[in-house]
Amino acid sequence: MATHKLLLLPGDGIGPEIMVEVKKIIAWLNTQGKETFETDEGLVGGAAYDAHGQAISEEDMAKAMDADAVIFGAVGGPKWDAVPYEVRPEAGLLRLRKDMELFANLRPAICYPALADASSLRKDVIEGLDILIVRELTGGVYFGEPKEIKDLGNGQKRGIDTQVYDTYEIERIAKAAFELARTRGGRVTSMEKRNVMKSGVLWNEVVTQTHKAGYEDVQLDHMLADAGGMQLVRWPKQFDVIVTDNLFGDMLSDVAAMLTGSLGMLPSASLGAPDPKTGRRKAMYEPVHGSAPDIAGTGAANPIAMIASFAMALRYSFELVAEADLVEKAIANTLDKGLRTRDISAEGDTVISTAEMGDAILAEL
Amino acid sequence: MATHKLLLLPGDGIGPEIMVEVKKIIAWLNTQGKETFETDEGLVGGAAYDAHGQAISEEDMAKAMDADAVIFGAVGGPKWDAVPYEVRPEAGLLRLRKDMELFANLRPAICYPALADASSLRKDVIEGLDILIVRELTGGVYFGEPKEIKDLGNGQKRGIDTQVYDTYEIERIAKAAFELARTRGGRVTSMEKRNVMKSGVLWNEVVTQTHKAGYEDVQLDHMLADAGGMQLVRWPKQFDVIVTDNLFGDMLSDVAAMLTGSLGMLPSASLGAPDPKTGRRKAMYEPVHGSAPDIAGTGAANPIAMIASFAMALRYSFELVAEADLVEKAIANTLDKGLRTRDISAEGDTVISTAEMGDAILAEL
Ligand SMILES: CC(C)[C@H](C(=O)O)[C@@H](O)C(=O)O
Ligand SMILES: CC(C)[C@H](C(=O)O)[C@@H](O)C(=O)O
Repeated sequence: MATHKLLLLPGDGIGPEIMVEVKKIIAWLNTQGKETFETDEGLVGGAAYDAHGQAISEEDMAKAMDADAVIFGAVGGPKWDAVPYEVRPEAGLLRLRKDMELFANLRPAICYPALADASSLRKDVIEGLDILIVRELTGGVYFGEPKEIKDLGNGQKRGIDTQVYDTYEIERIAKAAFELARTRGGRVTSMEKRNVMKSGVLWNEVVTQTHKAGYEDVQLDHMLADAGGMQLVRWPKQFDVIVTDNLFGDMLSDVAAMLTGSLGMLPSASLGAPDPKTGRRKAMYEPVHGSAPDIAGTGAANPIAMIASFAMALRYSFELVAEADLVEKAIANTLDKGLRTRDISAEGDTVISTAEMGDAILAEL
Repeated sequence: MATHKLLLLPGDGIGPEIMVEVKKIIAWLNTQGKETFETDEGLVGGAAYDAHGQAISEEDMAKAMDADAVIFGAVGGPKWDAVPYEVRPEAGLLRLRKDMELFANLRPAICYPALADASSLRKDVIEGLDILIVRELTGGVYFGEPKEIKDLGNGQKRGIDTQVYDTYEIERIAKAAFELARTRGGRVTSMEKRNVMKSGVLWNEVVTQTHKAGYEDVQLDHMLADAGGMQLVRWPKQFDVIVTDNLFGDMLSDVAAMLTGSLGMLPSASLGAPDPKTGRRKAMYEPVHGSAPDIAGTGAANPIAMIASFAMALRYSFELVAEADLVEKAIANTLDKGLRTRDISAEGDTVISTAEMGDAILAEL
């Protein structure tokens, strides 16, 4: 019986509340007599800043590096708006991504049938939607140097960020996208702005080469990122897998998430490269939504994205495919029964709390 | 009777066809005995590359600098996919923007009532939509240096682009946004990613300061650009004026345009600073849509965005507000009559050609 080490990093806002619901699922799995999950817990974001003056402590970073998977809640909130840039809540998240080398961020945008009416899009446009955005997560303008504000004198300052991509970074994310496409619809659309960015020219070139070198069974298309944003709104079902850089991936995956009307429902996985010796890959799982400080503590938070993120951990880190399917099915069943947290409720629905939603999913298991 | 010098740059793809329809409007205005428009014509984009090996010739650049307004069609197409980066069709557009210092790009996203059904969004979400995106157009990652691909040896290359903003660049676009908001709903939402970008930190700071220094009658909100993309999809009517940088503006204005279901209908204006002596500001007007090479020459192109862009020229460059209103009203009336080009037609509509649409609008005048 394998034992898996999980590090839970609930973070800020609704993070801790939704993490409680994941713990229920973990406890249940531990009673099934198949695999054992050992959990440890740490602080990240504003919570870590309040405790240590840093967005994540060295000790918690070491735990994250050592864990089989990190389960991450959410960070940030107006409370920390004025803290220095280097220790702002997001710095903890970015350090985890960078130090763990989690270069591949998988963001499925699916439309839960029970929720098709919650979308601002016409039902026919989003019903049955199932696309996967593969976002590069450790490069680009998020991390490139120089990244600074210079004082130019006479009242002028200059803000600088640098978008940088090397061949190997593009190649590995392209491979990840092609391999994922093989398990799905077999199509990849690569998005960049090669008409204005040199990194976009290189991106396009390397994705094309990688495709030729062993992935020609997958269909590859290229689209400018701005046109991609448009096409996501116009007819999102035209896509299967979208591969794009860190910043475009941030924008496009948020747009895609909102299309589904299921923002509080969408999980993500951030994966590193397999260790050459053990085959194990570092991984972190987090909901696509943020820390929603406005509703923290009110019991209104939707724990589904967090629980679905844990299901992705079962699938991608522990190859517990049956268990992942089970959890995802339990979520869908709960929704089919008409149970709704406030964010996904329509007039006339019975609205339940975070804990009630967690319990309902558990009951389905 | 004033005489105004227009430089027409039809460009590639459907550009020349839709420009023909604008010329009809110009000819009509010249018969009204109020103001006279003198037109000259030049080449830009692939058309200029084919003629001169450059995306715009020095001669045409000089004409653009000298014109009272440039009316721009569209550039680009697969024909020029392999031309060197420096002379690709888009380089002509970017040079016009940069050399004319057209820092303020106004992109209205309005939903024409007659077309609310053409949107992929629910009718209640977009009916009556009227927002204005004010995009910074001469700075940021489009123009920052270094911008290059380096060969690192051993098969690795590095693509680099640089996002740079100086205080004065942010200040002038913020002022433009506040002043435009005063003529509309009185609200500005500024979007950046200050949680990951230093240029975003500076952007936020300068917009806030500019607001305090004389624009406090306008309501100012800040939103992260990824959240902004989401909110545009969720409930676009929450916005009045959005001000953002060059790259975010590119993405967000395209998403906003597609929301309306009226992409082939949306105009834009790119404005420089008023000349300290003459008060005249350099300006270029262009449709938001691209060159659509796939339908070029088929008579299927919708000339409305191009004609509406010319209406913006009447409004912003020549203060011919009544004439601008007249042209916009003629467009709306034509639509109300049920006349549709293919892109905006639904089943059962009578589909008319580019020229027929131009003539119908002219007939309304
Ligand atoms: C919180 C923020 C730093 C982060 C990002 O920009 O990557 C978030 O928006 C996301 O998409 O995970
Ligand atoms: C054609 C291209 C260079 C341009 C841009 O990226 O600015 C276009 O997308 C636009 O939005 O005007």
